[in-house]
Amino acid sequence: MIEFSILKRSKKSKARLGILKTPHGEVETPAFVGVATNATIKALRSDEVVRTNTQLLISNTYHLHIAPGEQVLEKAGGINKFMDWPRPTMTDSGGFQVFSLGFGRDLGVGKVAKSFPGKIERLVEKNTQPNHVKITDDGVFFRSPLSGKEMFLGPKESIGIQEKIGADIIFAFDECTPPGATRPYIVTSSERTHRWAAECLRARRSKQALYGIVQGSHFKDLRQESARIINAMDFDGFGIGGDLGESKIGTRDVLGWTLPLLSEKKPRHLLGIGHIEDIELIIKQGVDTFDCTVPTHYARRGVAFTSEGRVDFMKSNLLDDKDPIDAKCDCLVCKNYRRNYIAHLVRAQEITGGALLTFHNLYFFNAYVANVREKIKKGKL
Amino acid sequence: MIEFSILKRSKKSKARLGILKTPHGEVETPAFVGVATNATIKALRSDEVVRTNTQLLISNTYHLHIAPGEQVLEKAGGINKFMDWPRPTMTDSGGFQVFSLGFGRDLGVGKVAKSFPGKIERLVEKNTQPNHVKITDDGVFFRSPLSGKEMFLGPKESIGIQEKIGADIIFAFDECTPPGATRPYIVTSSERTHRWAAECLRARRSKQALYGIVQGSHFKDLRQESARIINAMDFDGFGIGGDLGESKIGTRDVLGWTLPLLSEKKPRHLLGIGHIEDIELIIKQGVDTFDCTVPTHYARRGVAFTSEGRVDFMKSNLLDDKDPIDAKCDCLVCKNYRRNYIAHLVRAQEITGGALLTFHNLYFFNAYVANVREKIKKGKL
Repeated sequence: MIEFSILKRSKKSKARLGILKTPHGEVETPAFVGVATNATIKALRSDEVVRTNTQLLISNTYHLHIAPGEQVLEKAGGINKFMDWPRPTMTDSGGFQVFSLGFGRDLGVGKVAKSFPGKIERLVEKNTQPNHVKITDDGVFFRSPLSGKEMFLGPKESIGIQEKIGADIIFAFDECTPPGATRPYIVTSSERTHRWAAECLRARRSKQALYGIVQGSHFKDLRQESARIINAMDFDGFGIGGDLGESKIGTRDVLGWTLPLLSEKKPRHLLGIGHIEDIELIIKQGVDTFDCTVPTHYARRGVAFTSEGRVDFMKSNLLDDKDPIDAKCDCLVCKNYRRNYIAHLVRAQEITGGALLTFHNLYFFNAYVANVREKIKKGKL
Repeated sequence: MIEFSILKRSKKSKARLGILKTPHGEVETPAFVGVATNATIKALRSDEVVRTNTQLLISNTYHLHIAPGEQVLEKAGGINKFMDWPRPTMTDSGGFQVFSLGFGRDLGVGKVAKSFPGKIERLVEKNTQPNHVKITDDGVFFRSPLSGKEMFLGPKESIGIQEKIGADIIFAFDECTPPGATRPYIVTSSERTHRWAAECLRARRSKQALYGIVQGSHFKDLRQESARIINAMDFDGFGIGGDLGESKIGTRDVLGWTLPLLSEKKPRHLLGIGHIEDIELIIKQGVDTFDCTVPTHYARRGVAFTSEGRVDFMKSNLLDDKDPIDAKCDCLVCKNYRRNYIAHLVRAQEITGGALLTFHNLYFFNAYVANVREKIKKGKL
């Protein structure tokens, strides 16, 4: 159960300022959502994540199903109790893993990869399946990376697992289509995703909020059709998934085609955005929440985000730099630790280096989005 | 500069309760010393280590010399500022690495390894050197694991590096002899260690406290001779190094032979003890401080120390256990997180699992030693 209210609409853009009420408290939107794949922000305790001002976490149904298994989270009393996280939670549906374990892995690309000549088209023309995943009308067969056993995930299974995990917000099971997929492939895939969406709604027994996912890749009419179909269903909110095109213009276009067709009263979540530069752009199109692995992923590879751009602690020589990561940041890491120490830890491959950068980067992303909210409040976005 | 005062002596044993004053504050002794090899307790920020009640840290001269280099720490204003650690610090001299990179590596053994048939004896009889380290009368040649370049560490070099690192307490350069070494080897090695001790005293320019190291392996007369020689020099405290024999009885004997020959007024540090079971035993012999990698090392491998013994989160099935790691512990991890979550994190190889266990284990070791201090205070040890 969620309640979403819009406090203010920007006059200069489609940005909106809102409050998303959940059983675990309120989220000020637009909001950054931290990615806690395995029910943890890698390298930080939950009480530390609270101190980064992260409002909301998203965990992965696929990962938690494989280990420790949703029964463990159910017995623990749900994901919030399990990880001692007092704030709202989401779980994705496993749809993204259908892509990343399938075509993503075969083609060696991410969701927003640049185009690559004809590979996916050739796969699709031959009507072949990805190598490690079998997609059927009912769901997806794959092998557990732990046991090697064949496993199956479909709409009913995904909802059943997500109900046991117990997040405040869950997502309908979809196929996240590969970038560069052909139009015929997207037509078939979207039909399947829409059928699965209806099955998810029928399967739901819990009071968790259920978001439907709009697909349709970078094809305007297919995105619009998907938005109309998903909007007509009884979802509590919307996810925008799949390929957003190869550029910022692509992202803006896809959101521009899609969001105006979705009920204004329901929250919209953009699944997995790329970079900090994208944040204002997507918020201007009317996105309320978005998840992003960038702050945590880059942190563990020695990269900090600052008010003056990225700082790569492996590449730059910062061993004699006594400044904080970002002089304008007031996070506990910037108040207490200096670049020389972090540069040493990163180079020595000490876990603590990744932990310090993870803390700072999350704090920085949250402060960045808080500032965007402030801009909307003041009519400056 | 340190000041050491004894507040109380046990009547039932040689245990002593004391206060060690340093430029970075006071240490209640007997005290556990956390091992921060690379100027970090692996997986924790310094501010978190403070919250584990760790009073004192020891870092490694060898490691910090290789990376980032002592100049970096000197420019940072010393190790305390570098790592934002507000409490007292020690550095070892690099002597232990002479062993572990040398005979330790060749023989595949640790400092307190069980005996192994004749290997070291054969090496010593042939008067051969370890394979990767060359020990001369002046010091030790070795290759940097980073650059492959030949490097040299002798008494003057070790003191010069330790002065730049800037810990409150530094150690004389010694050879930590391999377990099972023959008597003739120990005689030669001890003579060298004693000569190096005198050179370290002459080389010191700083006001840091300098501890001399007693060697002599498990030979009673050689330990006693070493204690007399080191005690006669102008050190501020003592380190007890090298092989302590193969059993608790061996450790008790070596300390029993050695400590009574050292000035009562100066603090004694036991370098690198093994397990929690050893703590009372060594304190009863009159040890004031001791460092130990066990709580942090085991934490990263999924093992917790509790009031009811060890808990191995990889081996035990604790995925449905809602109890804290240790119901009697009041650390922040035990107050907030449960065994089911930690078991999941450890199995999923999440860094956060190691961080949670590191925090708890350090807290537990410090609480354990605080309890031993309480026993001395109450005349119960």
